[in-house]
Amino acid sequence: MTQQAAIALGIELRVLANSLDESAARVIADTRLGDYRDLAVLRDFAKGCDAITFDHEHVPTEHVRALTEDGFAVHPGAEALVHAQDKAVMRERLTAIGAPCPPWRRIASVEDVTEFATEHGWPVVLKAVRGGYDGRGVWVCRSAEEAAEVLAGGVPLMAETFVPFERELAVLVARSPHGQGVSYPVVETVQRDGICVEVLAPAPGLDPERAAQAQRIALKIAHELGVTGLLAVEMFETATGLVVNELAMRPHNSGHWTIDGARTSQFEQHLRAVLDLPLGSPSLAAPVVVMANLLGGDDPDLFSRYEHVMAHDPGVKIHFYGKDVRPGRKIGHVTALGTDLDEVRARAQHAAVYLSEGRYT
Amino acid sequence: MTQQAAIALGIELRVLANSLDESAARVIADTRLGDYRDLAVLRDFAKGCDAITFDHEHVPTEHVRALTEDGFAVHPGAEALVHAQDKAVMRERLTAIGAPCPPWRRIASVEDVTEFATEHGWPVVLKAVRGGYDGRGVWVCRSAEEAAEVLAGGVPLMAETFVPFERELAVLVARSPHGQGVSYPVVETVQRDGICVEVLAPAPGLDPERAAQAQRIALKIAHELGVTGLLAVEMFETATGLVVNELAMRPHNSGHWTIDGARTSQFEQHLRAVLDLPLGSPSLAAPVVVMANLLGGDDPDLFSRYEHVMAHDPGVKIHFYGKDVRPGRKIGHVTALGTDLDEVRARAQHAAVYLSEGRYT
Repeated sequence: MTQQAAIALGIELRVLANSLDESAARVIADTRLGDYRDLAVLRDFAKGCDAITFDHEHVPTEHVRALTEDGFAVHPGAEALVHAQDKAVMRERLTAIGAPCPPWRRIASVEDVTEFATEHGWPVVLKAVRGGYDGRGVWVCRSAEEAAEVLAGGVPLMAETFVPFERELAVLVARSPHGQGVSYPVVETVQRDGICVEVLAPAPGLDPERAAQAQRIALKIAHELGVTGLLAVEMFETATGLVVNELAMRPHNSGHWTIDGARTSQFEQHLRAVLDLPLGSPSLAAPVVVMANLLGGDDPDLFSRYEHVMAHDPGVKIHFYGKDVRPGRKIGHVTALGTDLDEVRARAQHAAVYLSEGRYT
Repeated sequence: MTQQAAIALGIELRVLANSLDESAARVIADTRLGDYRDLAVLRDFAKGCDAITFDHEHVPTEHVRALTEDGFAVHPGAEALVHAQDKAVMRERLTAIGAPCPPWRRIASVEDVTEFATEHGWPVVLKAVRGGYDGRGVWVCRSAEEAAEVLAGGVPLMAETFVPFERELAVLVARSPHGQGVSYPVVETVQRDGICVEVLAPAPGLDPERAAQAQRIALKIAHELGVTGLLAVEMFETATGLVVNELAMRPHNSGHWTIDGARTSQFEQHLRAVLDLPLGSPSLAAPVVVMANLLGGDDPDLFSRYEHVMAHDPGVKIHFYGKDVRPGRKIGHVTALGTDLDEVRARAQHAAVYLSEGRYT
């Protein structure tokens, strides 16, 4: 999807991939094969690039730092990126800058968990400090026994209180090296089994002051952490206000609606930001935009269902990622635009469910 | 630009290019090098493709026919394409189906021209039957002497009357092999020195009945000629009605506004049509859309002017074609969207003139 934006801006992309079958490699002429965990590979890859960025956050922090020390323009830089890689570092920093966080602590033993529970109550949410994704690496524990089981896994953990949220929101902001910042409208993200299935833009019925507050929080985090590129801030909306849940520093699933639904797609915005170009307008292209993820179903033959969805709704926008179909895997998304939330949501849902599962909603 | 649409639809493109420096080759992983005038090259290229189409009309008609006879799905087919390649064949056919044409005839001598002028008056417009583009291959002759000069060039010619038009319009339609047709809103095209510089969508102040008539004419031509893929019909609006000027059978400059300004870009529409998928919605994404072409100026360093244009108007969409800058060459376009024609037009003009020439409008 970054390639779509790069083509328009006349920016030539080079991609580091594990194999020529990967989504990005299929659509980028200048593909290099190699392991992103190997600093020598990264150094060789970086030669001749004006800027280097990521579409995931797993590149080792020390390699990002080394590339910057070599003189390459890496965005986001290691000092910012670590906050999207390490949840404990993120919580420490957000607490320090006054962003709203749930009570939390690093834990090393069951005693640490029970101590935390004594103060804040059960359930306790245990999170892997590094490497979690789409609900993986998060465990809601209702007792010391459950916590002990998670601890037995041996991964470094932290504890947070369980936040009784009303819904989940996300704010996508961009910040460029020279400090320009821009915020997209706040969206509502709808999750099922820890996976985002739907994004509603703008977040329906959100109090305008709370929306502005959410945008201020996200822009402040981007500024304080020195983010260059995109930052997605996932938040909980609770009865008493907003709580920051997670950070991502890249084009994010909660921003896929922007491709068709905003004047500037998040992918174009990310390119502008990492190249230190002026940022684009984040305005909505329609009063209501709904994005629904396509999750792989049992039948890998998506294309036979293509025609139905296209014929049923000539206005729905379909996006495939060039990935093989596996049950539950995000293999694409659809976007619908309009003026009435219920109608637009129904259109997006119909297309997504039919494409994924071959059944009607 | 077709690659941008193909990425979303999960369609893998293969391109036949003359060199790896060509625009399409720069952004398509599966690029084959070869000469489109060589049938053996085309046959080898076509193996394994689900459908074959063109981004220009210069592939020899007989090669297109041969590929179809080999069993390849070529869209548009030779029987349709010839009408966009040969202006005399086009005029014969359009006259036969009752589409509005100016008086015309094939000519072989100065006597033919003077005979035509005796009947219809001077000036006489002489056109190369094949190969004209952007005003090239068209000569407005005011006397037998001027006509003789053109005839001395030795290219096959036809004569048409000079149409005293009020403005130029264009209608872009798509038609799929199973016969579905769709028409985009009629646009006004503004030319300078025979080159389109600006497209206004929808055509300002166009009488709704005349707009519907223009769309009917274009859809009828697509149907009667058996067009598969896109058809752009360029028309003159005169004091007494519409006259068809030229046909193009491919994504066309007069439709570049659809990338940002319509629910379905012309490139996505072309892919849908040549793959016989249901066609997408041609609706406008805003009440007023203006596209302005970027013509190469004296200074080839476009990128130094990038920042100004982006900073000046975060909402304007910039499209570069990955072409080297040459004075007068179409190297990209910009699109602005909004509600007020004068304001939107001024925004597009500012961006285009500044990017092309480094001066303010």
